[in-house]
Amino acid sequence: MTDIHVLFLNASLKDSSEPSHTQELYEKARKLYEQEGAQTESIRLADYDIHYGVTGDEGDGDEWPQLLKKVKRADIVLIGTPLWLGEKSSLATQAIERLYGTSGDTNDKDQAIYYNKVGGVVITGNEDGAKHAAASILYGLSHIGFVIPPNVDAYWVGEAGPGPSYLDGAASENAFTNKHIEMLVYNTLYFAELLKDHPIPAKDNTL
Amino acid sequence: MTDIHVLFLNASLKDSSEPSHTQELYEKARKLYEQEGAQTESIRLADYDIHYGVTGDEGDGDEWPQLLKKVKRADIVLIGTPLWLGEKSSLATQAIERLYGTSGDTNDKDQAIYYNKVGGVVITGNEDGAKHAAASILYGLSHIGFVIPPNVDAYWVGEAGPGPSYLDGAASENAFTNKHIEMLVYNTLYFAELLKDHPIPAKDNTL
Amino acid sequence: MTDIHVLFLNASLKDSSEPSHTQELYEKARKLYEQEGAQTESIRLADYDIHYGVTGDEGDGDEWPQLLKKVKRADIVLIGTPLWLGEKSSLATQAIERLYGTSGDTNDKDQAIYYNKVGGVVITGNEDGAKHAAASILYGLSHIGFVIPPNVDAYWVGEAGPGPSYLDGAASENAFTNKHIEMLVYNTLYFAELLKDHPIPAKDNTL
Amino acid sequence: MTDIHVLFLNASLKDSSEPSHTQELYEKARKLYEQEGAQTESIRLADYDIHYGVTGDEGDGDEWPQLLKKVKRADIVLIGTPLWLGEKSSLATQAIERLYGTSGDTNDKDQAIYYNKVGGVVITGNEDGAKHAAASILYGLSHIGFVIPPNVDAYWVGEAGPGPSYLDGAASENAFTNKHIEMLVYNTLYFAELLKDHPIPAKDNTL
Repeated sequence: MTDIHVLFLNASLKDSSEPSHTQELYEKARKLYEQEGAQTESIRLADYDIHYGVTGDEGDGDEWPQLLKKVKRADIVLIGTPLWLGEKSSLATQAIERLYGTSGDTNDKDQAIYYNKVGGVVITGNEDGAKHAAASILYGLSHIGFVIPPNVDAYWVGEAGPGPSYLDGAASENAFTNKHIEMLVYNTLYFAELLKDHPIPAKDNTL
Repeated sequence: MTDIHVLFLNASLKDSSEPSHTQELYEKARKLYEQEGAQTESIRLADYDIHYGVTGDEGDGDEWPQLLKKVKRADIVLIGTPLWLGEKSSLATQAIERLYGTSGDTNDKDQAIYYNKVGGVVITGNEDGAKHAAASILYGLSHIGFVIPPNVDAYWVGEAGPGPSYLDGAASENAFTNKHIEMLVYNTLYFAELLKDHPIPAKDNTL
Repeated sequence: MTDIHVLFLNASLKDSSEPSHTQELYEKARKLYEQEGAQTESIRLADYDIHYGVTGDEGDGDEWPQLLKKVKRADIVLIGTPLWLGEKSSLATQAIERLYGTSGDTNDKDQAIYYNKVGGVVITGNEDGAKHAAASILYGLSHIGFVIPPNVDAYWVGEAGPGPSYLDGAASENAFTNKHIEMLVYNTLYFAELLKDHPIPAKDNTL
Repeated sequence: MTDIHVLFLNASLKDSSEPSHTQELYEKARKLYEQEGAQTESIRLADYDIHYGVTGDEGDGDEWPQLLKKVKRADIVLIGTPLWLGEKSSLATQAIERLYGTSGDTNDKDQAIYYNKVGGVVITGNEDGAKHAAASILYGLSHIGFVIPPNVDAYWVGEAGPGPSYLDGAASENAFTNKHIEMLVYNTLYFAELLKDHPIPAKDNTL
């Protein structure tokens, strides 16, 4: 499985000079991916100057094109996001906008370039919004060409109201969240390999 | 304030032969409403035979018309809902569909009949989905004519994964949820009274 | 491909005594499925007495169990829904609730019974809400075990405001919608066959 | 009504060097507001360097603080957004995040600083997503203290699939959209004036 590339796009609003709860949850997935022999890369979107827009390259200083290259190379793309007011972050929204910007680009079979790639999400919030954010992101990925295996929405949220975030308390022991990390890793890997051996044939799905 | 009528439509999937977590949370609001002199009525939608459709009366055994009468009399309408897969219940969806069915009916000023009524939500789930459900319900109410005061989304959800529901643990002590019950009650009452004294004049908002 | 079973659950609020716009859009998919040799079955949920709840059998007159049998036999399950106030119908919500009710049941590998099944949606509305409804339904299916191939959200909506529904105007000529029907059919078939030959192995995805 | 200030925050991904469909739709509202004697100001968020974060001032070059000042002065705040993949824009998401960042700041009655302000939305897309975006934004505003009058969601979307955007075709004649612009303007003005005369008293809604 050494030829499976996993790309984690962490849409935390903080850059990598600060800890990210979502990053910490993803670390559990990363270890499992690497145990299985996959190669992983993790990006903090806030470290990059990503311009607003819906194209693949917004010109002059836009750093999305270098991230898009990583997306093109990846077999598995995971979007990580915190939750604010029950929604995915603005950076997660922007990542989807920019991915959408090249959804009309095609592979050598005239399918969208995201065909045969596998999507998933890793989400943390101190309370509420994970499923809504997961639905939005997974739908966006699916609509532009990604495959969504079962159970690829790993998340942690706490009880209603202000309270500890993922890193602050005992969240790392949450059995439900940990189980979902395992399912995310295993199911994305299985589909990524399956699609390497059996890529989706071109038929009515060309652009 | 004795002339303020509060109607709680509880969209629990269980009828009143069984306890409802959402009902229990609403009871805190009910006590406060009654302390303030408002009259309250609470309906378990699952006790009624509500037909599918988007009219005010789906005929032959449809019990929505008697609920619609209560809605018409009410100054404050609260929708209560549990959360399943991060979404409001099917009964909550149906309540919105049926309310929408008469959104073209008008008051004596040719405004939608829901004008000058105030909306809010009371939500419980064992984890995640409250804000998404609140957004959907409050938007639906607003789109058909209700006023949405600030902070009229009272909810409780627990930590990610299976776990205690509202009645099962210490949820009734959650300070955030209890504070939001207070804000819900007070702000809905304030706007209901304000609109009794200052109903929205007919201008460009007639149908 | 004669051993691929497609089940369409139409969550129109109208029973089969009345035409359904969503049904009409699905008919285009059905023809393509049958051309490819798949077997199809179409259910109008409003024809059944489906009880509220989140179990597989709500007892006494509940007709969900007979639908659940069909779901268990199917390789591809499509949910069809109209749009009311920008949301999937109450019957679509209920279908997800009931499917969720047996998401803890397992196949002979201890995976959720929906593993190796493929999901998709067919949506019509006279305006707005298709992507939101698609996101909600596809996420629900994915969370309980279905695979979501790329581009399995076929929909039609018209311009903002009251106007023709799918059957009323020239919607059946909409090239975008027709293309998406083709992608839905072909991609669901491809993944259904792929998963018959290569079912998801049990590993960390058992319950 | 000369003392009513309307602030339009246009979350188009394009800065003001390019035309914005959403801006054009808002112009209809602006004219009506000015006819009624209100003062209006319109901001293209993409013209500003708004930093990611959930505080009122993210320091060093962050231009949100000057926008926050305008929000504080405004009686009516409208968020404008385009639709991408059926969602509000990343800039609209960011505006909500930044507004949320000071939702704990209080007025002289210890209520959230957004109390007595009125919210609304103006949305355009070439197809689908307006109600979902409206629900998300209006909920976000309501949750942090804004009042949401009835019918403050003015939008235009076209038929499913690629096609003309607001400025491209005959959209400006859409009677539904134009009616909703009128309702938006009149109802936001009515509530803004009402709340000037009758501000929400401090009771259980203090922070």
